[in-house]
Amino acid sequence: MSVGKLEECQQHIRAQLDAVVEFWLKHSHDTVHGGFFTCIGRDGTVYDELKYVWLQGRQVWMYCRLYRCMDRFRRPDILEAAKAGKKFARVSTNGNQWKCAFCLTRDGKAVKVQRTIFSECFYIMAMDELSRVTGDKEMQLEAEQMMEQLIYWVRKDASGLGRPQLPGDVPTNSMAVPMMLLCLVQQLSEGRPETGKKYADLGSWCVSEIRQHIQRDGTAILENVSATGAELPGCLGRLQNPGHALEAGWFLLRYAADNDNKEIQRTAIEKFVELPFESGWDKAHGGLFYFLDVDGHCPTQLEWSMKLWWPHSEALVAFLMAYSQTKNPALLENFFRVYEYTFSHFPDSEGGEWFGYLTQEGKVALDFKGGPFKGFFHVPRCLYMCESLLDDLLGKHG
Amino acid sequence: MSVGKLEECQQHIRAQLDAVVEFWLKHSHDTVHGGFFTCIGRDGTVYDELKYVWLQGRQVWMYCRLYRCMDRFRRPDILEAAKAGKKFARVSTNGNQWKCAFCLTRDGKAVKVQRTIFSECFYIMAMDELSRVTGDKEMQLEAEQMMEQLIYWVRKDASGLGRPQLPGDVPTNSMAVPMMLLCLVQQLSEGRPETGKKYADLGSWCVSEIRQHIQRDGTAILENVSATGAELPGCLGRLQNPGHALEAGWFLLRYAADNDNKEIQRTAIEKFVELPFESGWDKAHGGLFYFLDVDGHCPTQLEWSMKLWWPHSEALVAFLMAYSQTKNPALLENFFRVYEYTFSHFPDSEGGEWFGYLTQEGKVALDFKGGPFKGFFHVPRCLYMCESLLDDLLGKHG
Repeated sequence: MSVGKLEECQQHIRAQLDAVVEFWLKHSHDTVHGGFFTCIGRDGTVYDELKYVWLQGRQVWMYCRLYRCMDRFRRPDILEAAKAGKKFARVSTNGNQWKCAFCLTRDGKAVKVQRTIFSECFYIMAMDELSRVTGDKEMQLEAEQMMEQLIYWVRKDASGLGRPQLPGDVPTNSMAVPMMLLCLVQQLSEGRPETGKKYADLGSWCVSEIRQHIQRDGTAILENVSATGAELPGCLGRLQNPGHALEAGWFLLRYAADNDNKEIQRTAIEKFVELPFESGWDKAHGGLFYFLDVDGHCPTQLEWSMKLWWPHSEALVAFLMAYSQTKNPALLENFFRVYEYTFSHFPDSEGGEWFGYLTQEGKVALDFKGGPFKGFFHVPRCLYMCESLLDDLLGKHG
Repeated sequence: MSVGKLEECQQHIRAQLDAVVEFWLKHSHDTVHGGFFTCIGRDGTVYDELKYVWLQGRQVWMYCRLYRCMDRFRRPDILEAAKAGKKFARVSTNGNQWKCAFCLTRDGKAVKVQRTIFSECFYIMAMDELSRVTGDKEMQLEAEQMMEQLIYWVRKDASGLGRPQLPGDVPTNSMAVPMMLLCLVQQLSEGRPETGKKYADLGSWCVSEIRQHIQRDGTAILENVSATGAELPGCLGRLQNPGHALEAGWFLLRYAADNDNKEIQRTAIEKFVELPFESGWDKAHGGLFYFLDVDGHCPTQLEWSMKLWWPHSEALVAFLMAYSQTKNPALLENFFRVYEYTFSHFPDSEGGEWFGYLTQEGKVALDFKGGPFKGFFHVPRCLYMCESLLDDLLGKHG
């Protein structure tokens, strides 16, 4: 692989990141109530004023991460928007100071609450990253306090989330939960050895829970397994989510690097990067399927065959990080395979940003730039991480 | 329109109904635990043993309705399966004897409960129709008792359903609720003048609630309106579900006939049959869209442009009933327009039954015959009703 190609790729990604940041700075800020509009149409028009809390937290986090780590984004408007977004999203619900809403009205009234931990996860990420930028120790403490509540819900007693226990509803290890907690451990511990020690056990538990998803003698990653790591019956047990597996892959690669663990690195690459890419890539039309059934049944999710932007974002990060750690050229080849598909299908050269949802054949199926689940997160995180990894590979840092 | 064409159509529909009934008799019965498998693959294989309660109630209802109203289905195996299905689905949850589960394990343990009334609606339909066949007065009483609980939840106090009141979650009139209650009023009242009187006020309230969905000076049917019948902001308020409007259309037509009300008949045809068909029909590829946004924004439902079997089933019933009541040939023309699309796209000539989910272009996107939301209901109900309507039109009854 020529250095020239990596250079070209780095420049393209850098320009994409600049454009994507400008899109959200221009279209998503609510200067009246704070927080971010996330339902943004093809041309930037806000088509719904509801504010989804996952996306509020993610946008705060992303702004602060860019502000902290990339000189060109150390801009007062970015920091001010992040502060206003953090403040806006802080709505407690269910009588618990640590339970966040899922969806808020434009002026901040709770519309919907999920009986899960994800709004809280993204809010913790937001608080921690913002506190790193501002030096606000109390906010960092609050992030860790909310984290304690999450750990309690996940590992001790979930009843506070409000979901009734049902006799047929067996305890399940869903990939999303240990992934999110591992992501938070890495967020909270970065550059803080004491905090790292505090969360070391949790991190190792997350890795072990994620590895439980390696099933069928190591030939498949399954999205849901039993609490003891056995395969579950039916569609739930057979479900595969290639993008999620790839995302877990780079979380594990980061963990392997932080802990200098070659065995986890190998598992991450073989099982969580190469395997889901092989099984999840559509040989007929290109792109990653959203869902698959490991036995080849048709998934019951109506959108199973669609090509979504975020699995491709995650695949780009996963392959580039894997290459960066190993210098195995096959990994860089796959990075470019995903890169070609991604940049020839998702970016909107006219209206800016990326489309999020394509048909199996690669046609734009939903033409908005932001929606209830697509905000300022997967695209800029991917671009930021790829730019950084490429800078390292090209020797542009230090 | 020639009588020959109607004859041919009647014979085709009759043969389709026979084949569809045989498919479910052959593949869906759980002879061990009772109840019905509903996750049934292309070739009839059960790919998941979970039993969805909406579909349990619907299949019991449909079996009993066919048993009661069509001589050729007055078969002991059909009645026995219906009885076993009714018995299986009776699982109370949330500490309320009238609250049903949404999903059960194969042996009847609750896996999931919805904080809505729909499992109960279909269970009431099942009980009432079964009691009509068996003459079980206690079961009919139980159906009416559960109905009282539903009316309480809908019209007095929904807190028993378990959904927390949130400050941003404004009371909404969702089309599904008055539609389902009207359907139940018609079910419970059929051939029983005393019961009809008891539910007359409720029926008239349902009609009025359904009519609130006529918006924008009569130019659009919107799926969700405020509790006072005003348009709601955002995607929720702009959502259109053409299949649902068409289904409401024939519920209203039936109500108009029962009550000899020409004004409701006209509203039903103009606003709930013709209007959603005009706005919901895909001029480029044919077929009815699943969801649309009245202002032309892209809906946020990933499946918005897919062609589902059930809106087409409802459209067939709606147009044929409208024609049957008015003899307006334009309505019969539209019936045949939907008929051509439906029978050239949904039935599987190899494996039997219908596919449920097509891409916008009409390609099979999910190839199973039954799933969490597709059971023995919309297809056979449509075929049974169209066969009956055609028999009437052709003078084959009385």
